[in-house]
Amino acid sequence: MAALLVCSHRGPVTYWRAGRRLLPRSVGPGGLVPVMTPVMRRFGGRWMFSSFSPEDREVARSSPGGRERDGFVLQVLDVPEAMHRGHYEVVSVEYLGRLFHYLFELARAPVFDRRFAAAWRDYARVNALYAEAILRAPGEDPVFVEDHHLMLVARDVRRLRPSFARPLLYFHHVPWCAPDYFALLPRPVRTEILSGILAHDGVAFHSRRWARAFLDCCDRFLPGAGVAEDTVEWEGRRVPVIAAPAAVDTTALAGSARSPQADRWAARLNRRAAGRHALVRVDRVDLWKNALRGFQAFELLLEQRRELAADVCFLAVLTPTRTWVPEYRRYQQACERAAERINERFGGRGRRAPVSLLLASDPRLPDHHRALGALRIADAVLVNPLFDGLNLVAKEAAVVSERDAVVVLSENAGAYEDLADGALGINPFDVEQTADALGRAVDMPARERRSRAATLKRAVRARTPERWVRDQLRAATGR
Amino acid sequence: MAALLVCSHRGPVTYWRAGRRLLPRSVGPGGLVPVMTPVMRRFGGRWMFSSFSPEDREVARSSPGGRERDGFVLQVLDVPEAMHRGHYEVVSVEYLGRLFHYLFELARAPVFDRRFAAAWRDYARVNALYAEAILRAPGEDPVFVEDHHLMLVARDVRRLRPSFARPLLYFHHVPWCAPDYFALLPRPVRTEILSGILAHDGVAFHSRRWARAFLDCCDRFLPGAGVAEDTVEWEGRRVPVIAAPAAVDTTALAGSARSPQADRWAARLNRRAAGRHALVRVDRVDLWKNALRGFQAFELLLEQRRELAADVCFLAVLTPTRTWVPEYRRYQQACERAAERINERFGGRGRRAPVSLLLASDPRLPDHHRALGALRIADAVLVNPLFDGLNLVAKEAAVVSERDAVVVLSENAGAYEDLADGALGINPFDVEQTADALGRAVDMPARERRSRAATLKRAVRARTPERWVRDQLRAATGR
Repeated sequence: MAALLVCSHRGPVTYWRAGRRLLPRSVGPGGLVPVMTPVMRRFGGRWMFSSFSPEDREVARSSPGGRERDGFVLQVLDVPEAMHRGHYEVVSVEYLGRLFHYLFELARAPVFDRRFAAAWRDYARVNALYAEAILRAPGEDPVFVEDHHLMLVARDVRRLRPSFARPLLYFHHVPWCAPDYFALLPRPVRTEILSGILAHDGVAFHSRRWARAFLDCCDRFLPGAGVAEDTVEWEGRRVPVIAAPAAVDTTALAGSARSPQADRWAARLNRRAAGRHALVRVDRVDLWKNALRGFQAFELLLEQRRELAADVCFLAVLTPTRTWVPEYRRYQQACERAAERINERFGGRGRRAPVSLLLASDPRLPDHHRALGALRIADAVLVNPLFDGLNLVAKEAAVVSERDAVVVLSENAGAYEDLADGALGINPFDVEQTADALGRAVDMPARERRSRAATLKRAVRARTPERWVRDQLRAATGR
Repeated sequence: MAALLVCSHRGPVTYWRAGRRLLPRSVGPGGLVPVMTPVMRRFGGRWMFSSFSPEDREVARSSPGGRERDGFVLQVLDVPEAMHRGHYEVVSVEYLGRLFHYLFELARAPVFDRRFAAAWRDYARVNALYAEAILRAPGEDPVFVEDHHLMLVARDVRRLRPSFARPLLYFHHVPWCAPDYFALLPRPVRTEILSGILAHDGVAFHSRRWARAFLDCCDRFLPGAGVAEDTVEWEGRRVPVIAAPAAVDTTALAGSARSPQADRWAARLNRRAAGRHALVRVDRVDLWKNALRGFQAFELLLEQRRELAADVCFLAVLTPTRTWVPEYRRYQQACERAAERINERFGGRGRRAPVSLLLASDPRLPDHHRALGALRIADAVLVNPLFDGLNLVAKEAAVVSERDAVVVLSENAGAYEDLADGALGINPFDVEQTADALGRAVDMPARERRSRAATLKRAVRARTPERWVRDQLRAATGR
């Protein structure tokens, strides 16, 4: 099996200065890094990603060919700060991230004006930097372009070198939205994105549902595209469009979950639960992770069944994110207030607090062990995103749970297609239904818990990182 | 031709006290009233609608069988205030209105909790009141149920009287959203709505696009429904689902546009334009009408072409709406600030203000003459809603324009399907494209203006209120 050339915007490390040396440090949780890391460990090859800081840029300049680490090459690309801002903060986060997650408040945003147009030029420039780096990279390994930060890379590769022959694959890690919502984009941008993605040899999503939405957009916005069930004919090429849900490396994960650090967290959180049912959530405080409605649902459960206030403990393990954006700060504060309110209403006066809100102290540091410790001791895990490409936590919970945790899972998470048979499905906007599902999880008899947990484990184990890569390659190359 | 029994939430009048008598007064502009009024004038029959005030309730109680006026019967239904609040303010406006227009800020709303559940019970109760009133109504005329306030009426009619034989038709005046967004609703509510609508003999939308979105939702959320191109098989019945864009009564409209009041407004606004190109918009200040981006586009046009500041006058004829809702107040203030900013930047120092913001003094009073006066003298009309069921103004502009007005039209207005050939289509979120289209409208040579205006007029005249009704009846009954 060949190694891989992976291109993503965020890499697994960022660099920091230790005296005269620049050393790598693992980045925080979430996103595609936990999906790609086991893949790179298994296949090896080269991982290209953007510089996020002056130290990263220094490494990019001093080691333009990359540095080897853990059996593969890490190659940082030198993206100037201003270009990075337009590409990342404006286009990728403020526009595309909100677009694919249905997160605009449409009366006021998005506005496509000259500021967007300038940022879109930065977006295209960063994509072109990747294309140039790919063309300089040694070897004939297949190229995996990851996520919505890099949708124009393949177009530039083919423009710069029409004879480019390495397999070229695109994976979209976030949801894809319906045509009505995709149409918020300016017409030329719609075309650039769709045709840019179709410049690959294969296109993949975490779920059938997102793949179908992409096909619907091609059908509506690319006149002349021949859209079928799982291919698009475009400019004389036939591009497969498949669902290939990302997998967890169950062996490695079980190992991490048994590490001394995870052991310490499990013990500590166990003391906190103090014999009560442990209801756990593990998330970044991102607008689409839906922490707030999680608290509202727990509150409603306690309103309806006050006796549970003494029997259930809600461990909310949250990592702050984008705290420099006012809207994110307000959202986190709303979560903190909800937790306080629940504790005032249902705890206090000698009773224990029903909610433990565990906010990571430094959002830039990985806190995987804390998350794994919490998932190990969970009796129920709430995974209720508004819309989510996959949501790996749902799969991790199924693997590391020591108590046959019931997984209460949003039907809008990509992982739902794999886990529907074992999980309790909910509409994430329906707080009453979510409260009911949490109550059902608490009440569930041991036999049903075991059976559901076994179903979940089977579903998770049926997919491996290796299969994930091979499915994409097979679709694109027939091999 | 039979008369009609029309059921809508808002009626053409509301009542006020004059001494000991309760007299009808026409309601403000917008919504379905201007669509239904010419229909009732043409066909006659009975128009049922809800009470909005204590005076309306008094009329409902004193004249339960309705009162004749203008050749048809106006029948107010006695809806208790508390029930009205749940049905209208909570479910119809806060939830369904936002849902169908993609207007939620998803991180925080909608939340489906016990408050919604209680309001949903009110929604169902009001719908049941209509069903009971229909069953009491005399005659065998076909029943036309209008809009998303009344989606459960037909279900109740059939439950209460399975042998009900009058043709029963539903028309949806607002957009229909894609399945991903419709799925925000709790599962049982999704089923109630879709199956409630399918209890009619025919279902119609202003555009093919909304009809298709409805069919997509039936396909995804009604297991067992047989969804085809323009029908749904459901519970043994075959329900046609068609596009029947509403029409303007061009004769009546031309008459109103020539009234002395409209003449006065035309003359007054003409003086305001003072020889400059008149760019006109006419809208309620509703969140989906997109007044704010209209100002942003005009501002961008003047930035790009400063010479136009002296040559173009933007007459924004706006009617405040829901001013008791803070979000609506803030939105209106943002519009006012944008207008001021443009006038400061491009007017002042002896120059005339480029923007005239004409806000209706009393939002409850009809201001059709002011609107018609403005449309008569327009050189260009901006109709840029985010999403809109139809947007009648676009069609009215084409009829009453005296200057071959160029219509710059959102591709998300239902009217776009009829008017695409004559109008300049825009993506309403794309402020740059909107600015370009406004510039193009200003520059357009007389010959092209004439040809486009003629195309628009032909398209509008091809539809009549009579045909609108007959198309629905024919689809439902084959007659």
